[in-house]
Amino acid sequence: MDATDLEALARAVAAGTMTPEELVQRVHTDAVLDVGYAQVDTARGARTGISEVVYGAGKTHQQIAGICAAMCSAGQERILITRLDATKAQQLVEDSAFESVRDRFTYYADARAGVVGELPQPSGNGVILIISAGTSDATVAAEAELTARFLGNEVHVVQDAGVAGIHRLLRHAEDIAHAQVIVAIAGMEGALPSVVGGLAACPVIAVPTSVGYGANLGGLTALLAMVNSCASGVSVVNIDNGFGAAYQASLINHL
Amino acid sequence: MDATDLEALARAVAAGTMTPEELVQRVHTDAVLDVGYAQVDTARGARTGISEVVYGAGKTHQQIAGICAAMCSAGQERILITRLDATKAQQLVEDSAFESVRDRFTYYADARAGVVGELPQPSGNGVILIISAGTSDATVAAEAELTARFLGNEVHVVQDAGVAGIHRLLRHAEDIAHAQVIVAIAGMEGALPSVVGGLAACPVIAVPTSVGYGANLGGLTALLAMVNSCASGVSVVNIDNGFGAAYQASLINHL
Amino acid sequence: MDATDLEALARAVAAGTMTPEELVQRVHTDAVLDVGYAQVDTARGARTGISEVVYGAGKTHQQIAGICAAMCSAGQERILITRLDATKAQQLVEDSAFESVRDRFTYYADARAGVVGELPQPSGNGVILIISAGTSDATVAAEAELTARFLGNEVHVVQDAGVAGIHRLLRHAEDIAHAQVIVAIAGMEGALPSVVGGLAACPVIAVPTSVGYGANLGGLTALLAMVNSCASGVSVVNIDNGFGAAYQASLINHL
Amino acid sequence: MDATDLEALARAVAAGTMTPEELVQRVHTDAVLDVGYAQVDTARGARTGISEVVYGAGKTHQQIAGICAAMCSAGQERILITRLDATKAQQLVEDSAFESVRDRFTYYADARAGVVGELPQPSGNGVILIISAGTSDATVAAEAELTARFLGNEVHVVQDAGVAGIHRLLRHAEDIAHAQVIVAIAGMEGALPSVVGGLAACPVIAVPTSVGYGANLGGLTALLAMVNSCASGVSVVNIDNGFGAAYQASLINHL
Amino acid sequence: MDATDLEALARAVAAGTMTPEELVQRVHTDAVLDVGYAQVDTARGARTGISEVVYGAGKTHQQIAGICAAMCSAGQERILITRLDATKAQQLVEDSAFESVRDRFTYYADARAGVVGELPQPSGNGVILIISAGTSDATVAAEAELTARFLGNEVHVVQDAGVAGIHRLLRHAEDIAHAQVIVAIAGMEGALPSVVGGLAACPVIAVPTSVGYGANLGGLTALLAMVNSCASGVSVVNIDNGFGAAYQASLINHL
Amino acid sequence: MDATDLEALARAVAAGTMTPEELVQRVHTDAVLDVGYAQVDTARGARTGISEVVYGAGKTHQQIAGICAAMCSAGQERILITRLDATKAQQLVEDSAFESVRDRFTYYADARAGVVGELPQPSGNGVILIISAGTSDATVAAEAELTARFLGNEVHVVQDAGVAGIHRLLRHAEDIAHAQVIVAIAGMEGALPSVVGGLAACPVIAVPTSVGYGANLGGLTALLAMVNSCASGVSVVNIDNGFGAAYQASLINHL
Amino acid sequence: MDATDLEALARAVAAGTMTPEELVQRVHTDAVLDVGYAQVDTARGARTGISEVVYGAGKTHQQIAGICAAMCSAGQERILITRLDATKAQQLVEDSAFESVRDRFTYYADARAGVVGELPQPSGNGVILIISAGTSDATVAAEAELTARFLGNEVHVVQDAGVAGIHRLLRHAEDIAHAQVIVAIAGMEGALPSVVGGLAACPVIAVPTSVGYGANLGGLTALLAMVNSCASGVSVVNIDNGFGAAYQASLINHL
Amino acid sequence: MDATDLEALARAVAAGTMTPEELVQRVHTDAVLDVGYAQVDTARGARTGISEVVYGAGKTHQQIAGICAAMCSAGQERILITRLDATKAQQLVEDSAFESVRDRFTYYADARAGVVGELPQPSGNGVILIISAGTSDATVAAEAELTARFLGNEVHVVQDAGVAGIHRLLRHAEDIAHAQVIVAIAGMEGALPSVVGGLAACPVIAVPTSVGYGANLGGLTALLAMVNSCASGVSVVNIDNGFGAAYQASLINHL
Repeated sequence: MDATDLEALARAVAAGTMTPEELVQRVHTDAVLDVGYAQVDTARGARTGISEVVYGAGKTHQQIAGICAAMCSAGQERILITRLDATKAQQLVEDSAFESVRDRFTYYADARAGVVGELPQPSGNGVILIISAGTSDATVAAEAELTARFLGNEVHVVQDAGVAGIHRLLRHAEDIAHAQVIVAIAGMEGALPSVVGGLAACPVIAVPTSVGYGANLGGLTALLAMVNSCASGVSVVNIDNGFGAAYQASLINHL
Repeated sequence: MDATDLEALARAVAAGTMTPEELVQRVHTDAVLDVGYAQVDTARGARTGISEVVYGAGKTHQQIAGICAAMCSAGQERILITRLDATKAQQLVEDSAFESVRDRFTYYADARAGVVGELPQPSGNGVILIISAGTSDATVAAEAELTARFLGNEVHVVQDAGVAGIHRLLRHAEDIAHAQVIVAIAGMEGALPSVVGGLAACPVIAVPTSVGYGANLGGLTALLAMVNSCASGVSVVNIDNGFGAAYQASLINHL
Repeated sequence: MDATDLEALARAVAAGTMTPEELVQRVHTDAVLDVGYAQVDTARGARTGISEVVYGAGKTHQQIAGICAAMCSAGQERILITRLDATKAQQLVEDSAFESVRDRFTYYADARAGVVGELPQPSGNGVILIISAGTSDATVAAEAELTARFLGNEVHVVQDAGVAGIHRLLRHAEDIAHAQVIVAIAGMEGALPSVVGGLAACPVIAVPTSVGYGANLGGLTALLAMVNSCASGVSVVNIDNGFGAAYQASLINHL
Repeated sequence: MDATDLEALARAVAAGTMTPEELVQRVHTDAVLDVGYAQVDTARGARTGISEVVYGAGKTHQQIAGICAAMCSAGQERILITRLDATKAQQLVEDSAFESVRDRFTYYADARAGVVGELPQPSGNGVILIISAGTSDATVAAEAELTARFLGNEVHVVQDAGVAGIHRLLRHAEDIAHAQVIVAIAGMEGALPSVVGGLAACPVIAVPTSVGYGANLGGLTALLAMVNSCASGVSVVNIDNGFGAAYQASLINHL
Repeated sequence: MDATDLEALARAVAAGTMTPEELVQRVHTDAVLDVGYAQVDTARGARTGISEVVYGAGKTHQQIAGICAAMCSAGQERILITRLDATKAQQLVEDSAFESVRDRFTYYADARAGVVGELPQPSGNGVILIISAGTSDATVAAEAELTARFLGNEVHVVQDAGVAGIHRLLRHAEDIAHAQVIVAIAGMEGALPSVVGGLAACPVIAVPTSVGYGANLGGLTALLAMVNSCASGVSVVNIDNGFGAAYQASLINHL
Repeated sequence: MDATDLEALARAVAAGTMTPEELVQRVHTDAVLDVGYAQVDTARGARTGISEVVYGAGKTHQQIAGICAAMCSAGQERILITRLDATKAQQLVEDSAFESVRDRFTYYADARAGVVGELPQPSGNGVILIISAGTSDATVAAEAELTARFLGNEVHVVQDAGVAGIHRLLRHAEDIAHAQVIVAIAGMEGALPSVVGGLAACPVIAVPTSVGYGANLGGLTALLAMVNSCASGVSVVNIDNGFGAAYQASLINHL
Repeated sequence: MDATDLEALARAVAAGTMTPEELVQRVHTDAVLDVGYAQVDTARGARTGISEVVYGAGKTHQQIAGICAAMCSAGQERILITRLDATKAQQLVEDSAFESVRDRFTYYADARAGVVGELPQPSGNGVILIISAGTSDATVAAEAELTARFLGNEVHVVQDAGVAGIHRLLRHAEDIAHAQVIVAIAGMEGALPSVVGGLAACPVIAVPTSVGYGANLGGLTALLAMVNSCASGVSVVNIDNGFGAAYQASLINHL
Repeated sequence: MDATDLEALARAVAAGTMTPEELVQRVHTDAVLDVGYAQVDTARGARTGISEVVYGAGKTHQQIAGICAAMCSAGQERILITRLDATKAQQLVEDSAFESVRDRFTYYADARAGVVGELPQPSGNGVILIISAGTSDATVAAEAELTARFLGNEVHVVQDAGVAGIHRLLRHAEDIAHAQVIVAIAGMEGALPSVVGGLAACPVIAVPTSVGYGANLGGLTALLAMVNSCASGVSVVNIDNGFGAAYQASLINHL
C-alpha cells in the first residue's frame, strides 16, 4: 500500500464514504490473505511488478497446496514453486486441496520447480544470457532458465564454458557482447564471472554453486571468490540460487 | 541449596538434632536423584522456579523413561521432553519403564516434543507473542509455543511475517505493542528481530533458524545477524532453540 | 506512529480540520528529525519507552554534536552516547555545535560513554545484578552499569567471579537469588552464564567479551559457548555489548 | 578485441595490406599499454562501455601517477582513483609524473577517492537511489555516490534509514518506488536490503559494510545476511565496496 | 629403535658378528611388520610403553583382521580396536582372517570398540576420574572408560554432572579431590572442565563432544571454549576423542 | 589454439585458400565439440600435453556416456573418468550410448575411477613416489596411483607411513631420495609432507584427506596445515584430490 | 573450602563455639579477599596445590599492584604475573601500591612475565622437557620455562627442532626418552607434537603458536592440527599459552 | 644423514677406526650446528640440494646475525634471508656479529629480503615464468623473483595480467607455452591460476595474496579458490608465499 493508495483512502474518509476506523482496518489487512501458516502477500505484484513466488523447501505439500489455492483465489494467474523435489511434486499433484489448479500445473524435474499456468511470451528489452562453467552446474542453470522464462524473458543458455579451457568461453564472445544482462554460474573456484565481467558491457549476476568437494566448503569458496571479483560489474546471489539471479536479471531486463 | 537452607541445617546441628557428618552428607546429596546415567536435579523447581526439562536428543528411550520415572517419584507433576522425534516417542510409549506415566503422556508432533501431565492454566503477567518470518519456521515456532504453554503462559502466534513484505508485519503492530515479551523467529538473513525490536516496547528474544540453504550456514548466518541487530532490546538464543526462547520469555512473563 | 495516532489523524481528516494531503505528509515525516547525515527518530521514546541512544563509533564529533543538538531541540532530556573514546569526547566538548549542552555533559572514561543530563532516580521493579568473570572485563561491566543507571535502574555489581574459583561465585548466591534480572559478563570460554543460569530464578542476559587471546577469536568463542549454554534461561548479545544487555535488562526491570 | 575487429584485421591480410605476422602482433599487443608494473587495458572503454578505473590500495603514488599518465596518453578523458587515502593523495599531487594532470585532479576526502577531469552530465535512464542504514556508513555511501556521478548518473542519497526505526525508511517509499536501481548500504546485521527489496520494483544492489564490532566479523556477517536475503531482487557486492555497487548500478541505468 | 639399540647393533658390527650392511638393514626394517596396506609398528610398546591401537574408522574389516593377525603374530597380547561400529564388528567376527583371535574378542557396543584379549588388572598409581556433563555424552565416556581399563587403570565414572546444576558436580568434590587425573567430558558450551579445573589438584584432560545442535558446530564450540578455559590445569583433545583423553590419562597415571 | 596455429590460418587467408570469415569461424569453433550439456575441449591434448579428463561427480551416466562418445569421435584414445562410484559405473556400462567403448572400459573400484582404453607404458623421466600416512587414506592413494599410471608414469606406493611412528617413514628414506617427484597424502593433522619435504631433494605435492573426525573439519585442518608447512618444497592440492596431485606430478615427471 | 573444612566448622557449631550465622558467613567469605575489581582466591593454594597466578593482560598496573598487595597480605610467598609487557612492568615497579614488594620483584623480558619472590628449588619427580619447533617460538618457550621453574620443576629446553629437519629432533631422542612430561611448542603447521608423541613414553602437552602468516590464521591452524594429532598421548592448550602447558606439566611432575 | 652415510660410519666401526660410541655420537650431532636459539641444519644442502634459508620474521637481528655467522662458518656460500623488513635489515647491517658478512650483504627492499653472497648464474633446464594478476601483488612477485634467481634460475616476469582483462593475459600466451614452470600470483578472487593452468603444458604453482579487502579474508578466499581450481595442473602454497612457490619451481626446473 503506497502513498497514493493511502491518500485515496483518506479522501474517502474526507468524503464521508469511509469511517476512520475502516481506514485503519484497511491499512492493516488489505494486502494480505492470511491462511494461518502463511500470510500471502497479494499486493506484491502491484508493488514490485512480480507476484509472490512459493519457496517449496521446508513446506509440506498441504501448505503449498493451500498457498496456491489462496493465490489463485486472489486472482494470481501464474505461480512458480521453487525447490520442489520430485516426491513432493507428486504429493502435491495428488493433494485434494490442489485439485482446482492440477490441470494447469507442470513439473520441471531438471529445475526442481513447478509452474501453475502457462509460461508467458517474452516481454523484456533484450536477451538474458545464462552461462555455466560445467556440466555439473546444470540444475542451477535450469532453475535460472525456468525462472527467467516464467518472468517473461527471452533466454539464451551456454553450458560448460569454464575458464580452464578459455576458448570454450571466448567462442561465445558475441553472445556476451549482445546480452542485456548475464547470469554466470560456477562452482569450484568460481572464476567464470570475473572473466565474463571483463568481457561484457552489461551487468553480470554471479551464482556460486555447491559443485565441487573438499575445500569448496559447499559453495562458500565460490561465493567468497565471486564477491571478491576483480571485474567491476559483478554482483552475487546465494549458493545455488539460480532463481534469485534470474529474478534480478528479469527486473533489469524489464526496466 | 541456598544460604537459608544451609542455615537451617546448621541450626539443626546447633540444636543437636543433626550430627555434623549428617550436615555434610545432606549438602552433598540432597537435591539429586541419581539413576546412574543421569543425576536428576530435583531441587531445580525450588531453586529456579521451573522444574527440570528432559532434552530428548542423544538419549535412548530407556534413559528418557528412567528419568521420567525418577522425576515422578520425586513428585514432579508435569514433564516436558524436547527434541523427541516421532519414532522415539513411539518407542517411549511402548517402554515398560514408562508404563506408570503413559496415560498422562501426549506427543506434539509439530513441536517434536512430548508432555507428561496436563498443560497448566496461564499464570503470567501478560501475553507472549511469537512471530515467525516464514512458513518454513513452523517447527521452531511450535516448540516455542508448546514450551510457553507448558510453563503457564498465554501465547499469541503470528506466522509468516517476514520483512520482505513489511506490511505483513506492520498489520500486527498492535499485537507487538501489547505483548509482555516477544519471541521473534527467522531463518535466512534473520532480519525480523531488528524490525520488531524497533517497534516494540518490551524485550525481544530472537531465535535464528536453520531454514535456508547455501550461505545460511545451517542457521549461523541468522544467528550472527541477530547478535548484531541494530535494534537495542534484542537478545539471542541458539539456532532452532524455540524451547530456550520460550523458557526465558516465561521467566520474564512471571517476574 | 501507532494505530492510535493514525486513527487520530484520520479523525481530524474526517472532522475537516486536516486535509488528506496533510495526513499523508504527517505519516511520512512526523517522527523524524532529518539532519542530513542522520534521521533522528524522535518518536522512539513514545513508541518503545526509551529515547534514541547515540552509537558513537564511526561518527565524527561534528555528527555527534549535531545529533545531540537535534535531540535536545526535539525535547529529549537525557542522552547517552556509547562507544565514545576519550579523544573524541574531548573534541566533542570543544565542538561549538555542542555548546548548548556542554554544561550538562559528563564523560565516564571507564564505560567509554558520555551522558547529557542527569542520571535519573531508579524506577524499576527490582535490582539488576551485573556479574563479571574477571577483572579484565571491567570496561564492559562499566558500560552495562552506566547504561542501566541511565535507564533508571538500581544496579548491583559483582566483579571477578569466574567459574575457575567457583566459591567466588557461590558466595554471591543471595544476590543471584534476589535479582530481578542478571547480566553475566565473561570472556575466554564464557562459562559464567551457564553456572549463573542454573542458580537463578530470573532471566540471565549473557555478554561475551573479547578478553582472552588465541583461540578466543576476539570473543567469538565466548559468544558461541554462551549461545550453547546448557542452562535454560540464558540469552545472548553481541561481543562486548554491555550497553545492549543493560538495555534489555532495563526493559525487563520496567515491565 | 572482439570478432569484428579480428575480421577487419583478417580482411586487411586478405587485401594484402597487412602481413600475417602483423596480424598476430596486433592481436597480442594492441589493446594494452604496458608500463612494466601495469598493463593498462586501453580497449576497456570500447569493450565494456566504461574505461578502466584505478584501484589505489596497495599501489605506490609513483605507480598511480604512471598509470594515470599512460591512460591520458591513450586518450582517456576522465580517471577515477578509488581507495586513495588523504596522505597518498597528497603524495600523488606532489609527484612529478603527475604534473600534467595535476590541474584536472580533485580529491574527495569523504569518498576516499580522486578524480582526474570533470564529472560528466548525467546520461542514464533514471535515478540511482543510494540508501544507507546508519550515519557510520557514510564513507561507503560517499564512494558509491562519487562513482555513480563519475559514470554519468543522477543520484539521490538517503542516509541513516536503518530498519530499527522502520518509519525512517518508509517515509522514503516514494523515492524507492521511483528509482531505476537502488544501492542499499548497511553494516551490523545488514537487514536493510531485505526490507527495501520487498518494497522496490527495481533491482537492489546490497553493500555490506564493516560498521559494527564483535560478531560482525568485519562485515562478513552483513555480507552473509544479505546473500541470504528473503527478498528476491537483491544481489550483493564485497564488504565496503561502494564503488562496485555503483558501477553495476550505472551499467543498469545505462542499458 | 633408540640410541641403546643402535649402540648394541654397532657393537655387534664391531665384534664382527654382524656386517655393516646388516646393521643398515636392521635399522630400516626391524620395528615394522609390513602388510601392504599397513605398516604395523611392532616396537611401539617397547618405545612408548603402550602397544599400537587400531583406529577402526575408514578401514575395511579385512584390513582390521589382517592388522590384528599381524600384531598377534608379533606377540602383542592385547589389542584395542576403536571406532568400530556394530555392523563392522559383526563382519570382523565372521572374517576368516580373524579366526585365530575370534575367541578372545569382545565387542563393547556402548564404547563402539572391540578388544582382543582380557582387560588387565589395574596397575597405575591412582584412580582416573571420568566426569561427563550430560547423559547424551555417554558414548564418549564409555570409550574413555574402556580405553582406560584396557591400559590398566582403575576408573571411576560420574555422569550427568553439568554445570547448570552445579550442586550435581559439587557433591562429587571428594572424588575430584582424590583423583590422580581427571577426564572431563562435555558438549554444548563445554564449561565443565573450567569448573572442575578450579576444584582439582590434579591434571584435567578435557574432551569436547559433538552433543548439541546449531551453533555447537559439531563440537567445535566446546573445543574452542575448553582451549580458552580460565582454569589453569586443563588441556584438550579432539572432539569425541574419549580414547585419546584416556590414553594420556593412563600415561599420567603410570608415571 | 596458440600463436602458431593462428599464424597458419592467417597465412591461408593471405594465400587466398581461406576467407577471412572462415578464419573467424575457425578461431571460434575449432577446438570444441559441443554436445549441448558439455563443450568437449578437443584441443586440450595439443595445448597442454594431456587430453581432457571427465570429472564424474554431478554428471549423469547419460552425460558421461555422451562425453566419452564425443571424445572418441574426436580421436581421443584413452579416457579417464574420476569420481565415478560403483553404481554409476554400472549404469554407464549398461548405457546404450556407451556401447561402442564398453569393451575398452575398465572400472577401478578402489580408485573410484574408470578408464577407456589401455594404460600406457611409462614414459616419464623417473619414478613418482606416492606415500600415504594411514591405511584409511587408501582411496585417495589409489586415485593418485591410477591417474599417474594413466598419464604414463612409473609409480611406487608406500602406505601407512604416518609420522607418529617416524621409523615407518625413515625406512623408506631411499625411495624418497630417488624419487623424481613425491605425492604425500595425509588426513588428521597432515604432518607427513613437512617431514617428507625436509628429507627430499625433489618437489613434494601434498594431498590433505578427509580422514579423521571432529576438528579435522572434513580435511580442512590438514589442508591448512600443509599450506603452512615449515618445509620449503611443498605445494598443496584440494582435499582428497589424488587425481590433481598425480596430474601435476606427471607434468613434472614429463618435463 | 572442601568437605573437611566444612565439617570442622559444623563441629564448631555443634560445640557451641560458633553460631550458625557465623558458619554461613565463613562459607561465604572466607576464601576470598575482595578488592573491588578482583576477588583474590586465597584458598586456591590449599585447594589445588598452586596459589593463584595473575594474568596481566587487560589489567591496569594499579589493579595488578593491588592484587599483589592483597596476595602478600594473605600470606602468599611467591607471585607469578604473566602477559606483562615491558611498559606495564615499568609502571608497576613505579606504582606506590607496589612499594612493599618492589624489592622482591624480577621482570623476565623474554617471557613477558614478572615474579615476586624467589624461584623455588625444583621439587618434582623428574624433568620437564620443553621442545620448540623454531627460533621464532622463543617467547612462548620462555614463558613455559619460567612458569615451570616458578612452580618448582627442573626444566630442560631444546629449541629449533622442527620436523622439516627431522634429525635436529632425533638427536634429542634421549632427552625425549627420559623426560617425565614434554611441552612441545610449534607454529605454522604444528607437526612437532605428532612426531614427539610417537617417540615419547610420557605425556606430551602441545602448544600451538601464532608464528607464521597467511593461512596460519593466527595460530588456529596449528591448534587444529595438534588436536587432530595422529599420535595418541597428546593434549593441547591455547595458542601461545606457554604458561598453561607448563602449569599442567608441573601438576603431572608433582603427582 | 642418509643410508650411505650411515653405512660408511658402520664400515669405519667394522674397520676399527671408529668406536661404536663415536658412531652414535656422529649420528646425533653431525649435521647440526647448535647456537642455542637455533639448530642450523648444515646437511640440508647435501640432503635436499638447497641449503637452509633464514625466515626473518619473528627473529631478532641478533639471532639472524648469529645464524648467518654459523652458516658461513659451516661453509655455506650464499644465504637468503626472507621476510626481512627495512628496519631490521638496517639493524642487522649494524650488528657487530654480522660484521664478517656485511660486505657481501645486499638488501632487496621490494622483495623484503636480503642476500649474503652473489646471486648465481642460472643453471636450470628452462625459464621460470612469474605472472601476477595486479600491480598490488608486486611485493610477492618480487620475493618469488629474487628467490628463483638466488636458487639459480632464469626468470621471466609478467605483471598485472589479471583475468578481468583477459587479453592482457592472452598476449603472453607464448611465454606461457615456453615456460618450464609457472608461478601464478593473485589476490582477490584468485582466478588467474585457473586460466593459466588451462593454457599451460607445464606445472603451475599458485600463490594467493592478501591483496584485496572485506571478504578476501586476508587472502584466505584466494587460497581456497586456487585449491579448488578447475584446471588440473595447479598446486598451491601459503598466502603471500612467493618464496615457497619459487623454491618449488626451482626444484622442478633443476630436476
